[in-house]
Amino acid sequence: MAKIALGLDYGTNSVRALAVDTATGEELATAVFHYPSGRAGVLESEDDVHLARQHPADYIAGFVATVREIGRSVDLQQVVGIGFDTTGSSPMPVTADNRSLSQDMPGVLAAECWLWKDHASHAEAKEITELARRRGEPYLAKCGGIYSSEWWWSKILHCLRTSPEVFDRAASWVEICDWIPSVVCGINDPTAIKRSRCAAGHKAMFEEAWGGLPSIEFLNALDPKLGALRERLYSVVYTSEHVAGHLSADFAEQTGLPGSLPVAVGGFDAHFGAVASGASPGTLVKIIGTSTCDCMVHPLDEPLPDVPGMCGVVRGSVLPGFYGLEAGQSAVGDIFNWVSRLTGRSHEELTEAASALKPGQSGLLGLDWLNGNRTILVDPRLSGLFVGLNLHTTAPDLYRAAIEATAFGALRIIERMEQYGVMVERVVACGGIADKSALAMQIYADVFGRPVSIAKSDQTCALGSAIFASVAAGVYANVLEAQAKMAGVRPTVFTPDAKAHETYAELYGLYRDLHDQFGVGSSLELSHVMKKLLQIKEDSIG
Amino acid sequence: MAKIALGLDYGTNSVRALAVDTATGEELATAVFHYPSGRAGVLESEDDVHLARQHPADYIAGFVATVREIGRSVDLQQVVGIGFDTTGSSPMPVTADNRSLSQDMPGVLAAECWLWKDHASHAEAKEITELARRRGEPYLAKCGGIYSSEWWWSKILHCLRTSPEVFDRAASWVEICDWIPSVVCGINDPTAIKRSRCAAGHKAMFEEAWGGLPSIEFLNALDPKLGALRERLYSVVYTSEHVAGHLSADFAEQTGLPGSLPVAVGGFDAHFGAVASGASPGTLVKIIGTSTCDCMVHPLDEPLPDVPGMCGVVRGSVLPGFYGLEAGQSAVGDIFNWVSRLTGRSHEELTEAASALKPGQSGLLGLDWLNGNRTILVDPRLSGLFVGLNLHTTAPDLYRAAIEATAFGALRIIERMEQYGVMVERVVACGGIADKSALAMQIYADVFGRPVSIAKSDQTCALGSAIFASVAAGVYANVLEAQAKMAGVRPTVFTPDAKAHETYAELYGLYRDLHDQFGVGSSLELSHVMKKLLQIKEDSIG
Repeated sequence: MAKIALGLDYGTNSVRALAVDTATGEELATAVFHYPSGRAGVLESEDDVHLARQHPADYIAGFVATVREIGRSVDLQQVVGIGFDTTGSSPMPVTADNRSLSQDMPGVLAAECWLWKDHASHAEAKEITELARRRGEPYLAKCGGIYSSEWWWSKILHCLRTSPEVFDRAASWVEICDWIPSVVCGINDPTAIKRSRCAAGHKAMFEEAWGGLPSIEFLNALDPKLGALRERLYSVVYTSEHVAGHLSADFAEQTGLPGSLPVAVGGFDAHFGAVASGASPGTLVKIIGTSTCDCMVHPLDEPLPDVPGMCGVVRGSVLPGFYGLEAGQSAVGDIFNWVSRLTGRSHEELTEAASALKPGQSGLLGLDWLNGNRTILVDPRLSGLFVGLNLHTTAPDLYRAAIEATAFGALRIIERMEQYGVMVERVVACGGIADKSALAMQIYADVFGRPVSIAKSDQTCALGSAIFASVAAGVYANVLEAQAKMAGVRPTVFTPDAKAHETYAELYGLYRDLHDQFGVGSSLELSHVMKKLLQIKEDSIG
Repeated sequence: MAKIALGLDYGTNSVRALAVDTATGEELATAVFHYPSGRAGVLESEDDVHLARQHPADYIAGFVATVREIGRSVDLQQVVGIGFDTTGSSPMPVTADNRSLSQDMPGVLAAECWLWKDHASHAEAKEITELARRRGEPYLAKCGGIYSSEWWWSKILHCLRTSPEVFDRAASWVEICDWIPSVVCGINDPTAIKRSRCAAGHKAMFEEAWGGLPSIEFLNALDPKLGALRERLYSVVYTSEHVAGHLSADFAEQTGLPGSLPVAVGGFDAHFGAVASGASPGTLVKIIGTSTCDCMVHPLDEPLPDVPGMCGVVRGSVLPGFYGLEAGQSAVGDIFNWVSRLTGRSHEELTEAASALKPGQSGLLGLDWLNGNRTILVDPRLSGLFVGLNLHTTAPDLYRAAIEATAFGALRIIERMEQYGVMVERVVACGGIADKSALAMQIYADVFGRPVSIAKSDQTCALGSAIFASVAAGVYANVLEAQAKMAGVRPTVFTPDAKAHETYAELYGLYRDLHDQFGVGSSLELSHVMKKLLQIKEDSIG
């Protein structure tokens, strides 16, 4: 009889369930449930375009619906464990009996889940950053020095400030990656929830070195009510191979799953996707979609200084037993979409024409900061740049230069990691761009001078949940063993071409010049840039 | 009985004749003749894409055809003089009896006219520039320090090198602006042609201060045959209010014009267009089409040092009795065309949407060097740049930023002139962009902080020819008097808006930073640029 792990991946618009054979990683069945509330699952407000909420009841309905759907093609009695990953930071206020506060306050948006992309809390993010700096707190060292409006404390503080009636009625706050497992396990006390280390990490600034969550004094300085909340949160966190609880009889009956099934501690989608893509020392996993999330691990027993500019460096996040490093580019696929929109050409058309160009042939060089720079400059007020334009510059030239610019931005991140001793030998990509653009992947390999593989699964996040579920269920002793059997890459590897890499190394030198000048200022003069681009162009077609 | 002047304007694809009432400048009739030879009048070669020639017989056929056409609506007996302007530098080899050598060497492209845009001679241009520098010759001081492949000596030397049989058979070489008047006057000896000062000026490096044309020693160093040619050229030049000759009986009969009509010395189209637009001290005339030609005059009795980076500073060119200063931008309308092509949107659509944007609102800043920089950096190997791009940047944003970039480039030229004492109080624009884009003209006024008028005529070059014809014919005592009656601007003036000018002054400061850094290199750091652009954008919509 097969041992099947179920992975549930809660995205922005829908939840996907995946049944995986733990022995082989074979994906046996999948099911998707679109959240019924709001617009494509997101509750919005006419008063604030930055607001984005979700209705937690949708999560539970989605769990039952997708598992039942899986049950139509898979024998659910063979399921040995369940894992969950979600977006984050997506905190929600709960009652003392661990129900969503939205149940008691219908129609109040602040009582719903505050979705990751809710940007209403930018003032609070700034306030937290400034307070931490002023007090000389170490909290921001792990998250690039700037706290984000997307994260836990910004959102809770914003709720306190703008919807105090919700804040006052909340017994506690929970990330949805912790809440959903707790509900299916029938846990009815928020203080009993096993909280995810990877969620607590830089999003909630949790770190044992400074006593867990930020100090009560720090939180009091933001607001005494926030200081008081600290007690009602958590002081211990768990990596996701731990058992969060066991499936309740109620949900066993509703879904058809065996009762008392072990449920793994939840986590964030990008980290789980990285695990299912084969995150391991020396392997950088890039989840490449509209933006990227870059995940890297480093052994806990090797010293690791703070790496300036990383989004997060968290013990045990991503892969248990390792430091998890998180970095990212604020826009990648979004830049390609921008070129397509600007020029009125389809991606297919642009890709085909751009593929016919040689490295350097466009004569263009870009800075990939059209949505700011997340890593390593951590500066949302930077913008995009293209240089080398002439009257013959075409849409495919621009498209290729956009891809190259994102590759140079990615290489800058790799260099920063290596500068601090985290060596990147190979890259595994997953996500929409990795799936769809062989051109981009070849350019990435050529720019990096390192092989680029593509994750085998096109549902890496859900597969990651299944991997953690298999360990929680005791099928494997640890995540590395489970990864070895269940994760993997496709046979085709994008191998760097030596000549292309040489050309790109020259272009990257120019990228660095622009990066440093426009990013932070430098004493470097730039009169060589246009001439060198022209020379490289001429050499490429010579 | 009216006194009518005929102006003939020889362009790249056609010749236009214009009959003008000398008393009022009223344009009575016009006629166009498309050159029948080659592709749209231009002879090309599959072996060399840079080659562009014209068949001189087309010029004469065009003269007869257009004048006859004019004669259908105007009484040609009222014509008192004829003037000619042409493209340039467009030299042609002639026989000892002043016929086009192409008559004797049919099918030989080198024996035709070497059209202004023929770029086959870039190696020779470089050789001339380097020799002049090495020998410490003063010849390049008046043309920005770099001799162009479009100019007289480059082309003749290229002929000598690549088609020696043509060079050896040529009795002399003549600019077509000199040859066409000489032919209609029946002059059958090239040494008897009155050569145009404005053509001889920087294109042939003619200047009395160094003895006319470059020295025989200099030419010998290029090639002894070139030195020998010097004798068969000219040593005296004439401004265009002089009489070049009188219409021959033959052409009087062919056209229906009165015999012995005075014909003015010819000149270059841009200079004549400037005169017809009202070129005078304090007034900068910008001929704005695919590229621009900027013409400015300065009294001969006021000291004028060499102005670094100008295309030409020539005594008596443009307006007799003044220094003529010529500058230009290598691409203006061509950049707008590029945006239209790149984005697949029409100029109408882009203009309408870009007009709705406020100064600074696009958040973009560009360097207008998509075809290099002609003035003041004189560097064809520079390229275009746009910075400030984000994921919401639209085609109209880019279009407006392109217009603004050309305005900043134009202001840089104005500043350079003023730095050397040539003050620009107002601007008169003519040419396709001036006619068609009120948006561009308002942006120019706002960027310059100076009023911008549009020349009354939309055939300024032909009108300029008519103005010189009227002086040659004795209707007016000098060009200034003729200008006062026949030239002029439209009633609508584009007046700078104070607030817009203030915003543009900030943006221009950033333009200067980029201009200097990318153009020649500077010690300035650029980390402020993106932040400042964002600030200006936010202020503009604030």
